[in-house]
Amino acid sequence: MNTNPSNIMALTSNTSNKKETVCIFGTGDFGRVLGCKMIQSGYSVVFGSRQAQTSSLIPKDAEVLSHAEAAQKAAIIIIAIPRQYYNFLTPLAEILHGKVLVDVSNNLKLNQYSQSNAEYLAQLIPGAKVVKAFNTVSAWALQSGPLDASQQVFVCGDDKKAKQIVMDIVRALGLTPLDQGSLLAAQEIENYPLQLFPMWKFPIFLSLGLTAFFFFYSLTRDVIYPYVYENKDFSFFIAISIPNRICPIVALILLALVYLPGVLAAIIQLYRGTKYSRFPDWLDKWMLCRKQLGLVALAFAFLHVLYTLIIPIRYYVRWRMNSGVLSQALNNRTDPFINTYGWLNDSYLALGILGFFLFVLLGITSLPSVSNSVNWREFRFVQSKLGYLTLILCTAHTLVYGGKQFLNVSSYRWYLPNAYMLSLIVPCIVLVVKFVLVFPCLDKPLTQIRQGWERNPRYSEQSNHIINKSAV
Amino acid sequence: MNTNPSNIMALTSNTSNKKETVCIFGTGDFGRVLGCKMIQSGYSVVFGSRQAQTSSLIPKDAEVLSHAEAAQKAAIIIIAIPRQYYNFLTPLAEILHGKVLVDVSNNLKLNQYSQSNAEYLAQLIPGAKVVKAFNTVSAWALQSGPLDASQQVFVCGDDKKAKQIVMDIVRALGLTPLDQGSLLAAQEIENYPLQLFPMWKFPIFLSLGLTAFFFFYSLTRDVIYPYVYENKDFSFFIAISIPNRICPIVALILLALVYLPGVLAAIIQLYRGTKYSRFPDWLDKWMLCRKQLGLVALAFAFLHVLYTLIIPIRYYVRWRMNSGVLSQALNNRTDPFINTYGWLNDSYLALGILGFFLFVLLGITSLPSVSNSVNWREFRFVQSKLGYLTLILCTAHTLVYGGKQFLNVSSYRWYLPNAYMLSLIVPCIVLVVKFVLVFPCLDKPLTQIRQGWERNPRYSEQSNHIINKSAV
Amino acid sequence: MNTNPSNIMALTSNTSNKKETVCIFGTGDFGRVLGCKMIQSGYSVVFGSRQAQTSSLIPKDAEVLSHAEAAQKAAIIIIAIPRQYYNFLTPLAEILHGKVLVDVSNNLKLNQYSQSNAEYLAQLIPGAKVVKAFNTVSAWALQSGPLDASQQVFVCGDDKKAKQIVMDIVRALGLTPLDQGSLLAAQEIENYPLQLFPMWKFPIFLSLGLTAFFFFYSLTRDVIYPYVYENKDFSFFIAISIPNRICPIVALILLALVYLPGVLAAIIQLYRGTKYSRFPDWLDKWMLCRKQLGLVALAFAFLHVLYTLIIPIRYYVRWRMNSGVLSQALNNRTDPFINTYGWLNDSYLALGILGFFLFVLLGITSLPSVSNSVNWREFRFVQSKLGYLTLILCTAHTLVYGGKQFLNVSSYRWYLPNAYMLSLIVPCIVLVVKFVLVFPCLDKPLTQIRQGWERNPRYSEQSNHIINKSAV
Repeated sequence: MNTNPSNIMALTSNTSNKKETVCIFGTGDFGRVLGCKMIQSGYSVVFGSRQAQTSSLIPKDAEVLSHAEAAQKAAIIIIAIPRQYYNFLTPLAEILHGKVLVDVSNNLKLNQYSQSNAEYLAQLIPGAKVVKAFNTVSAWALQSGPLDASQQVFVCGDDKKAKQIVMDIVRALGLTPLDQGSLLAAQEIENYPLQLFPMWKFPIFLSLGLTAFFFFYSLTRDVIYPYVYENKDFSFFIAISIPNRICPIVALILLALVYLPGVLAAIIQLYRGTKYSRFPDWLDKWMLCRKQLGLVALAFAFLHVLYTLIIPIRYYVRWRMNSGVLSQALNNRTDPFINTYGWLNDSYLALGILGFFLFVLLGITSLPSVSNSVNWREFRFVQSKLGYLTLILCTAHTLVYGGKQFLNVSSYRWYLPNAYMLSLIVPCIVLVVKFVLVFPCLDKPLTQIRQGWERNPRYSEQSNHIINKSAV
Repeated sequence: MNTNPSNIMALTSNTSNKKETVCIFGTGDFGRVLGCKMIQSGYSVVFGSRQAQTSSLIPKDAEVLSHAEAAQKAAIIIIAIPRQYYNFLTPLAEILHGKVLVDVSNNLKLNQYSQSNAEYLAQLIPGAKVVKAFNTVSAWALQSGPLDASQQVFVCGDDKKAKQIVMDIVRALGLTPLDQGSLLAAQEIENYPLQLFPMWKFPIFLSLGLTAFFFFYSLTRDVIYPYVYENKDFSFFIAISIPNRICPIVALILLALVYLPGVLAAIIQLYRGTKYSRFPDWLDKWMLCRKQLGLVALAFAFLHVLYTLIIPIRYYVRWRMNSGVLSQALNNRTDPFINTYGWLNDSYLALGILGFFLFVLLGITSLPSVSNSVNWREFRFVQSKLGYLTLILCTAHTLVYGGKQFLNVSSYRWYLPNAYMLSLIVPCIVLVVKFVLVFPCLDKPLTQIRQGWERNPRYSEQSNHIINKSAV
Repeated sequence: MNTNPSNIMALTSNTSNKKETVCIFGTGDFGRVLGCKMIQSGYSVVFGSRQAQTSSLIPKDAEVLSHAEAAQKAAIIIIAIPRQYYNFLTPLAEILHGKVLVDVSNNLKLNQYSQSNAEYLAQLIPGAKVVKAFNTVSAWALQSGPLDASQQVFVCGDDKKAKQIVMDIVRALGLTPLDQGSLLAAQEIENYPLQLFPMWKFPIFLSLGLTAFFFFYSLTRDVIYPYVYENKDFSFFIAISIPNRICPIVALILLALVYLPGVLAAIIQLYRGTKYSRFPDWLDKWMLCRKQLGLVALAFAFLHVLYTLIIPIRYYVRWRMNSGVLSQALNNRTDPFINTYGWLNDSYLALGILGFFLFVLLGITSLPSVSNSVNWREFRFVQSKLGYLTLILCTAHTLVYGGKQFLNVSSYRWYLPNAYMLSLIVPCIVLVVKFVLVFPCLDKPLTQIRQGWERNPRYSEQSNHIINKSAV
């Protein structure tokens, strides 16, 4: 669109009311809904179909013609038919020459074909300008308006002009086009709608693994041990007591694992004396899923809070409290208040509350719309400074909770320490190493390295931009 | 703007520093703030006013002229005056010929006039290109920057070129234009800022109706019945006990109502043997407000959680517990621990916690910025798979809670069953029907139908896109 | 890009596959990552460097040339070198004449130089078209994709055409350009990434001040007083009891301070008889940080809820309850249930729950993605109507809580009233004044004033737009 101010008058007297004509091959669901939406946005739509007859399902304002006739009417043709029927387009190659062909197809499986549908189409009709688009929106999302699912439309194609035309159509439909580059990106774009939370897989499997391990660990210590030695049936612990032991442990370990790669990266950089070497692949991948790790940890922390707050409502807890009081009453005895217990108990609760509060704050900040509205420095402040504070508070919460438990003699069963002791290993390592790294003798060279300094210097110009991942 | 790469050099040597001039008719709040913002964005602004004198309120860099003079200076004229004064534009018809007129007006009531303001304007000045825009942003939002309220500007108009010019201005002001098609959409756009949560009306009225019903139901059973038969005053139950009975019931019913239309749609499709017939209107509308129904249900579930967690702090609960202990102490008796009770109690609490956890997860996923960043398959996975799991957990929570209650003899009062029993009807129906639909003998034809197969086949091409609403 | 439909055929036969060439001066982190991203988006990239040799860090598809050679190859040159090296560009002035220079630099401190980097660059190379852009995105954000940090790119420049070219590049990289006007805005844009929550400073310092005051106030009353007079050690109150006294107080005061400026503005408008005079500066600033004040208040309310729900788990609380029961048991006495206590206790809990529920609702609505999807009327409804309801419920919660406490004789210690009494002052003032303002004799003239009426009328045209800030 030409908005050069001096041209406005010229243009407005132009053919501006003639609406662009778009041709759609295929009268399936997606073709029809897309056509309908395009008519609403002011386009003329011609359907190309094997049988050139209007069905009641096709929007009223649209024409239905044979493929060849329809294609001749428009410069843009949307191919809304499955890949397996693409070969019937070959006879139309001449008509399609120079046209913009929009491939909207999806496959049923990841990497179903070695060649993406769009590239296959481009190879079939070499004279056409193939653009991949619209495969990430469903007909249902098109129909029901902008709020129900993603509005992002990934667009790629080798012809920049053709891509721009398609992106303008995307915008006109109220969707957000995202240029993904050349047609080489088509494979990835076609895989995108088939993905199921790829970034979440590692954090979720890891947390499930940890959950399973600590479940059997706690089962052994808290249910099987008393059953074997004291013949007591604590099987109902499976419902709440054991989950409430697992959740905080997994949450703390996962939270520490969010900050471990940053610490490892710093060590690697210090050792190498430069930031210009690539990290090992596993470290790169680990760093990219830190946000997901953190959110899974938050989910476990949230469950821990719910399980904890429900404690005084439990029948078992009420019964135990009552029998405690009753035994005192029957023995005419009143346990005195022990100030140390009061301090220990209140401080581990307070530490837990503050840790959870900051954790929730971190979670809110990682919502896309919130993290989009803060600048880079603010984002780093929240995710790094507040993040470490959260880790410190949660570790202290567990340590002080332990402090109370250490007084119990019954801590070791079958030489198994209490599960929470295991959970402290990773966070303590992270905090100790981080603490060491903060010392000037290490912090100063690290900062220099991150600003681009190299122990064995090579030529490099620097911008003022912070790039290094471990900075977060 | 012409970004054709080969033209860049030509263009940059061009008249590019000459800023576009925009004329604003009307020096009211909105006109002034809009003018101010446009000057900041690099436009020249000329105000057209009845009295061509600068007031202290008008931005310094703007000129104030008579309407006729101002209009001649620009190709775009923003009409920031109320509809009732539009007729004074008629004498200017000749000057306004061919210009882009931007109607920014709003009305005070929904459908105040049979004809939208923009269409009325287009009829008054037939030679002008009328574009509706800016009516959805307030002067306050323009002034205070992008974060405080909606930045979406709906734009419509019959002239595509004129619309593009206006949309470029919208973008230059840092707002998001949304093309709504021809001027026929003006009525809807003018109604938009007057709407008050139209999609929420049905869910909220429904939940209020259910709340009222169950309030009187519980009042009868829990306050009036004991007052009549046992002369006990439990009126203070109105504050917490009764709300905490109503909230979970309404939440569970609403959650089941989210999934009922999908089940109904599947039955209709199986019966008709095709997905190409429209659903009845009420079912369509019901489907479109499922998200809102679910969020209202979540709100009630959240209240239920708060009411439940507060239980042990209540004076009444503490007093009852204490008097229980005291009566045991005075009678020298200790109630034994009943393992079945422990299991029942812990499992209904655990089910409730897990159900609420998943429910919160569903709620977070329905935040616009989150649902925008997942693909269609992920959205379906969360909203459908996790949604049904939530419904199963919450129904089980209520059933197990009931399991405990069934042991009480005092369940029926005045032939009224406990309220939670009523709440189980809808969820159980949904789950049973869904369970039946999962059987291969029904699931297979249903999947075929949803892929486009018809029992009485007609011609239809299919794309690989999932469209059917009940698929969610 | 020219989408004039009649030109599509002409254009598509054009030079559309020739990718635009962009030159980047500087091979530091940011330059390299930006170059990499641009190549992915289909641009040709030429690096200009002091030593024209490719390093392993530079993207493979990019050329590295001397500055002069590189500059000649492109119409757009991105200056990715620090400000202190800008002067070496002076010899290149002739080559850079007429080119678009994109300044991406940041400083290390707010207002480090009196002149912004971009203006300094424009002054050094007067013949070039300088555009400020990209300084708000970090290399890390560019690399790791759209979800991790802000995608907003602020763009400013005196040359509109050059700015448009840069904004198109920004869009092509999947980022969101925001036009900030002329190069005068560069200073502000350069300061933006250095800011650390500027709008949050006042609310956070205010809340910290209030917290400190009420901490020492409560310490005096609840720890020092009993230590001095009763020689009791309640120092462990510092962990939970005192924070749980401070949090609701600070939350309530902050919430009232959200609504106080609106009330003050209404009084000022009524007194002046017009809305066309500026409010005092402090009132304007106060109004602009109301959202942040409200969210800080919500954080304190959330902490209060957590501290309160944890109460029955505390060792001290359990011990006190048990010793209460024991003293009854030992004295063979059973305290009767007092209905009034039941009512008071349950209603202040219920009011608190409902108040917190609405507060959370307000918080959710202020998430950017949610507030973007509601219209102005809906936003006002939630933030004003629901906001006042929240304030009323929370004030009532505190009053009824007080009602219970008033019965205690021990309320005054060292002439200090209970802290919650102090917290009621501001909310009660706001609610009383608001209540008075709702009376028709005041509401009617106020509405007229806000619609533009003036007691001493001047000429002014009005649009139907609501502008006045105090309207919220």
